[in-house]
Amino acid sequence: MKVICDGLDLSDAVLKVSKALSVKAANPVLEGIKITAEGNTLTLLATDTELTIEKKIKADVLMEGETVVVGKYFVDFVKKLEKEQVELSRLYDAQLQIKYSDSESELQVFPAESFPKIDKGMEDGAYFEISQVDFKSIVEKATISCSVDDSRPILKGCLFEIEGGNLTCVALDGFRMSVVNKEVTASGDFKAVIPARALNEIVRLLDKEEQNLKIYIKGNSLFVSVENTTLISRLIEGEFVKYRHILPSSFANTVTVNKNALLSSIERAAIVARNDRYNVVKFEVKEDLMTVSAKSEIGNVNENVNVNLDGKDITIAFNGKYVSEYLRVCGEEFVTLNLNSPIDPCIIKSVSGQGFLYLVLPVRINA
Amino acid sequence: MKVICDGLDLSDAVLKVSKALSVKAANPVLEGIKITAEGNTLTLLATDTELTIEKKIKADVLMEGETVVVGKYFVDFVKKLEKEQVELSRLYDAQLQIKYSDSESELQVFPAESFPKIDKGMEDGAYFEISQVDFKSIVEKATISCSVDDSRPILKGCLFEIEGGNLTCVALDGFRMSVVNKEVTASGDFKAVIPARALNEIVRLLDKEEQNLKIYIKGNSLFVSVENTTLISRLIEGEFVKYRHILPSSFANTVTVNKNALLSSIERAAIVARNDRYNVVKFEVKEDLMTVSAKSEIGNVNENVNVNLDGKDITIAFNGKYVSEYLRVCGEEFVTLNLNSPIDPCIIKSVSGQGFLYLVLPVRINA
Repeated sequence: MKVICDGLDLSDAVLKVSKALSVKAANPVLEGIKITAEGNTLTLLATDTELTIEKKIKADVLMEGETVVVGKYFVDFVKKLEKEQVELSRLYDAQLQIKYSDSESELQVFPAESFPKIDKGMEDGAYFEISQVDFKSIVEKATISCSVDDSRPILKGCLFEIEGGNLTCVALDGFRMSVVNKEVTASGDFKAVIPARALNEIVRLLDKEEQNLKIYIKGNSLFVSVENTTLISRLIEGEFVKYRHILPSSFANTVTVNKNALLSSIERAAIVARNDRYNVVKFEVKEDLMTVSAKSEIGNVNENVNVNLDGKDITIAFNGKYVSEYLRVCGEEFVTLNLNSPIDPCIIKSVSGQGFLYLVLPVRINA
Repeated sequence: MKVICDGLDLSDAVLKVSKALSVKAANPVLEGIKITAEGNTLTLLATDTELTIEKKIKADVLMEGETVVVGKYFVDFVKKLEKEQVELSRLYDAQLQIKYSDSESELQVFPAESFPKIDKGMEDGAYFEISQVDFKSIVEKATISCSVDDSRPILKGCLFEIEGGNLTCVALDGFRMSVVNKEVTASGDFKAVIPARALNEIVRLLDKEEQNLKIYIKGNSLFVSVENTTLISRLIEGEFVKYRHILPSSFANTVTVNKNALLSSIERAAIVARNDRYNVVKFEVKEDLMTVSAKSEIGNVNENVNVNLDGKDITIAFNGKYVSEYLRVCGEEFVTLNLNSPIDPCIIKSVSGQGFLYLVLPVRINA
């Protein structure tokens, strides 16, 4: 293998694929980036077997070939070569030679044969198509509710359910749930549970908001291509929680409130609640006023927020973090809290009620 | 105590003084910020007994008084009140009431009497005066050589030696030494060892490069005032290392090199040397070429850098980190390395040779 490419292109590509590198893999070759020189293209590929990222850049291939270089060192090394013309060649099995200016360095490599085969023929799978900006917004809204612990792997992903051209994206962690809806163009009806990590990595690849993104699903894999970068992720297997019956069908109370006013109050209350495991923030709604409060040995916060109440006065408490995380991503000026009783789930949504619905369980407090 | 002030002023002041807060102090009152309302001024003060920072802001004092509020919670709380008019009042001994909009919160306080007394009458001490920009540059250059471990406390500071209107600032950690010189206006000849931490905190307070800074030394304390912020630091007691005789008086070899070229090469070499405790980077000077190299199980780097050699060919090795840290702060386009033998200290300085001299010990390598 012998190939010449631009240092900045190389650095950018290596940085992109490095997000799929394994850290401390049982199989060390998964800590490597596979480099393939073919035609007039240099292909960089990293995988931890769950997530795979591949990027192609233009290069002057003098001799075709492939090798696998230790990812973390290669990332740091090419970052310092952005201004150079870089020549990569596999000298003998154990070394990748890197030439630039009139210097030359070598990095340790693994044999390319030991690198896992990645199945890339996905373009005949089911798909849905959506603008980059909409996809980004859906992922941001849904992933706040993904579980971060490993006890129930399915909750570390988002359910993507396509039915009659409508996408419903759902995530829940046992304390709150995001349900995001959006019309999409799709090949048909299907569903898949996509790991939150893959969704976040797809979002990082996006740079042209107005362009469309086509996401393919086939077997237990997802496939997406942005510019010259391809991302492949395993789907999470198993049945997702039946979420529809969790949603209450009617509410006794509807509280409408300015998002920023509520968020500021919760953030201040969270400061005194922060040493408490449940970050308990209390909401007391009396006619047109909601008192947001928290109390601990640190002190106590009592804030008055103007609201519009449709229903009876109610006092309910939440983990403040769960409510503020919703408010930060909801993208609305006014939101409504739909409540039944201090022990029933609350649904928060925008006043228009379209597109994004967030369910949060209250925390029981002593009266 | 009852006082009204602007939230942004308060937040800025609290953030500034918080740098002197104790973390996990044996005496919990040192985790507090002392608030004093007097005349038309609100004074905030924090100290960990080594370092003290005080800031005064304009306020509408309705009732004079003082209290001590837990620093970390107060910092976070007022950060969320930047847009508000804030009223602070000590209700009863155990609470500071904070009013804003039509909300009110309370934070836990300590009795002001338990807060240590700070001696602030320093304006009759010895002093030197220097522009903010020069002070910043001296601190940056000197502190890279300060020790970070506690085994020899005196090495965690910089010696400031004033003699005949010339300041010599020295720091060393047993592996390298910075010696920075600058003309200053001073009250006379004196010396003091100032903790690196205090120097860095003074630099953080500076925002008007062209203005002068007057640093007072009295007894075992340093005192400096910038705008309405006052910083007081204990000096480090004890005799500083006699540094002058460490400096070699003559050199067999002088190598002149472009700083950026050398820095880039060392940074790449450092990548393969980084798992090595001493980060060994080798410099082989042969006539007009210096080969910068490093080798480990990660790979090997060999870089050629053009130099101008006055003397004989020489091979010497350094901890790459020590050389690159110098090059990053030296602020010169060309530097000279003055060498005697592979086991003698090296002095690096700018080509003009003025103002900043850096000594670094080589690492012994097998030939």
